[in-house]
Amino acid sequence: MRILVLGGDGYLGWPTALHLSKAGHDVGVVDNLARRHYDDEMGVDSLVPIRQLQRRVATWKEVSGLTIVPFIGDLTDHPFVLETLRVFEPDAVVHFGEQRSAPYSMIDREHAVYTQVNNVVGTLNLLYAIAELNRDIHLVKLGTMGEYGSPNIDIEEGFIEITHKGRTDVLPFPKNPPSFYHLSKVHDSHNIMFACRIWGIRSTDLNQGIVYGQQTPETALHPDLATRFDYDGVFGTVLNRFAVQAAVGYPLTVYGKGGQTRAMLDIRDTLACVELACLNPPDAGEYRVFNQFTEEFSVRDLASWVQRVAPVEVSIESIPNPRVEKEEHYYHAVTTKLPELGLQPHLLTDDHVRSLVELAITYKHRVNPEAIRPTVNYRVTKSEVSVAGGAVGE
Amino acid sequence: MRILVLGGDGYLGWPTALHLSKAGHDVGVVDNLARRHYDDEMGVDSLVPIRQLQRRVATWKEVSGLTIVPFIGDLTDHPFVLETLRVFEPDAVVHFGEQRSAPYSMIDREHAVYTQVNNVVGTLNLLYAIAELNRDIHLVKLGTMGEYGSPNIDIEEGFIEITHKGRTDVLPFPKNPPSFYHLSKVHDSHNIMFACRIWGIRSTDLNQGIVYGQQTPETALHPDLATRFDYDGVFGTVLNRFAVQAAVGYPLTVYGKGGQTRAMLDIRDTLACVELACLNPPDAGEYRVFNQFTEEFSVRDLASWVQRVAPVEVSIESIPNPRVEKEEHYYHAVTTKLPELGLQPHLLTDDHVRSLVELAITYKHRVNPEAIRPTVNYRVTKSEVSVAGGAVGE
Repeated sequence: MRILVLGGDGYLGWPTALHLSKAGHDVGVVDNLARRHYDDEMGVDSLVPIRQLQRRVATWKEVSGLTIVPFIGDLTDHPFVLETLRVFEPDAVVHFGEQRSAPYSMIDREHAVYTQVNNVVGTLNLLYAIAELNRDIHLVKLGTMGEYGSPNIDIEEGFIEITHKGRTDVLPFPKNPPSFYHLSKVHDSHNIMFACRIWGIRSTDLNQGIVYGQQTPETALHPDLATRFDYDGVFGTVLNRFAVQAAVGYPLTVYGKGGQTRAMLDIRDTLACVELACLNPPDAGEYRVFNQFTEEFSVRDLASWVQRVAPVEVSIESIPNPRVEKEEHYYHAVTTKLPELGLQPHLLTDDHVRSLVELAITYKHRVNPEAIRPTVNYRVTKSEVSVAGGAVGE
Repeated sequence: MRILVLGGDGYLGWPTALHLSKAGHDVGVVDNLARRHYDDEMGVDSLVPIRQLQRRVATWKEVSGLTIVPFIGDLTDHPFVLETLRVFEPDAVVHFGEQRSAPYSMIDREHAVYTQVNNVVGTLNLLYAIAELNRDIHLVKLGTMGEYGSPNIDIEEGFIEITHKGRTDVLPFPKNPPSFYHLSKVHDSHNIMFACRIWGIRSTDLNQGIVYGQQTPETALHPDLATRFDYDGVFGTVLNRFAVQAAVGYPLTVYGKGGQTRAMLDIRDTLACVELACLNPPDAGEYRVFNQFTEEFSVRDLASWVQRVAPVEVSIESIPNPRVEKEEHYYHAVTTKLPELGLQPHLLTDDHVRSLVELAITYKHRVNPEAIRPTVNYRVTKSEVSVAGGAVGE
């Protein structure tokens, strides 16, 4: 297949592009390099050094003999989107190309507006380009399990059958997300569902859990192929961040009670899920949702797990929750569609938790401990993150 | 109360401002005059002549002795929003200030993106300004019954109790709207619900049906106080448009089978509902939804009604549906909260239908019949509306 990976320079986009290339697909990557810019804005950096996109692609060619075609440009630039799709002629477009940090979207008004406009307009441009050029192109869109929030009922895959006052319908699962970032994904989902309905576009919305891990079979082939590993309070996600905190002797910071339970998955399963979605497209006009995760963990349980298996001494500290969220709640989500397509999950093991800490120890000289503390308080409209100074902290 | 009406130069915003002023509130209006610009862009005009905002406000002062303070500016301009709220110090903000035509949003990509960015960013700016200045300000937001689509179950007011696999929760009512415009309102609703939760803002989301009528007790006091009356294929809503079609001998154009059923209300009830919402604010942090309509009609029934009571001969023509929507479907929505607050509805009568046609006959010399035909086809990505030429039609 010909597959275009949007956001193909990012944490998940790059290893997905490698995986799909290795699997025999013709792969192009599109990126505006915004993720690298956020690092500069926040004064932080990936734990593991990463190369520029051009070098990554060149090394991949040397190592594998395979070609990945890079397109540098912005999805909010519609002529660019249209021209890229026209030139590459993809069968599927895998769309990771959005601002993906909840705390980043909650820094202040400017970052909230930027996140929603960037994500929503990029996806609208893509929908229009597909509708204009070729409605058979399969849009594989990265959503998030966070779109659902934490309802007191089981979370189904995108839709739920509701019987009410003696009548029944299957309707979109209600959304109640916890940040302006997550809201941008809810907006996208509604826009995509509508575009499928009116234009006969086919789309898979992958409501993904929180991803952990950093190495994939392809990134391990050469240091130039490494993908990023974020540990800072803005872009670092929970397990990866805990691994770094353990490595540098910083207490594992649990926000509030730590009973927040989330759906999670191994980075290698992200790659497998995306490929399964591409290989099994929906019908024309179909909008389908896959819940893309393998296990559910509470933040507290993850902290304890890291403490138990880390090869160093680890302490755990509960800090005031900078987010507004339930800290103890029911959580159970359904995921059957990806397993039915053949997903063989990598469940989290002691070995994997330990290897994450060991990876962090290898690169601990690159860690800026100041960047770990959460600096974005959802209750205020302007957080202390000093954007002007390009630095995190007070 | 001090009430700021955003979009206070528009079809509903202006008579709402007059009504609230007459009722004894201190009223300010905010408008960027975009609605007048859309007329120029489309080469159409209000059936009833309307005055510029400054003249309207001056005449209101002469007629009533009451002052309405105008603010000319754009809600996407955050410093303007912040300064206006700082200066006016409202108790409530009534937010009509959005692009409100479904077909306009479906003209092409540019109009879809404009509608979503304009509406979503304007509302985000407002939420941030309220959170920054005074979280007690009550945001009375105009949503639309179209946010719900036409589910096969009864539409509740914003939320629905769902029992699923033995567990129960009250969750946002699922949304499945029929245009990029309606989607912008869905996005707003999700953003507002979240802002109430994290910042303790209070908001009422008025999911309004389709409004008909043009005269209110205040607009009738002087020709300068008239509000607009749209009949064109882009901005004209169903009953008002049919009245004009009847007046000029243009067949009533029913899109498809005409079984599309929608919630509707009289313009005078819009004014009453908005005031009831202002006078009865929700608790701090509460996001509540009122379904703001009084009756449900199918398009077919409305056409027959106009035909039956019009003082002229009227024909009805079914034309291919330019929209993508169910043409026969179950539709029943609940509305109890506004009646509980005291709403006394003006139900549609033969007299009112006839008076609408008579109003249209009075101004039939101002009608451009070319503007009536629907020119926006939802199935294509670029409609025939020639924006460059500022004219409707081929």
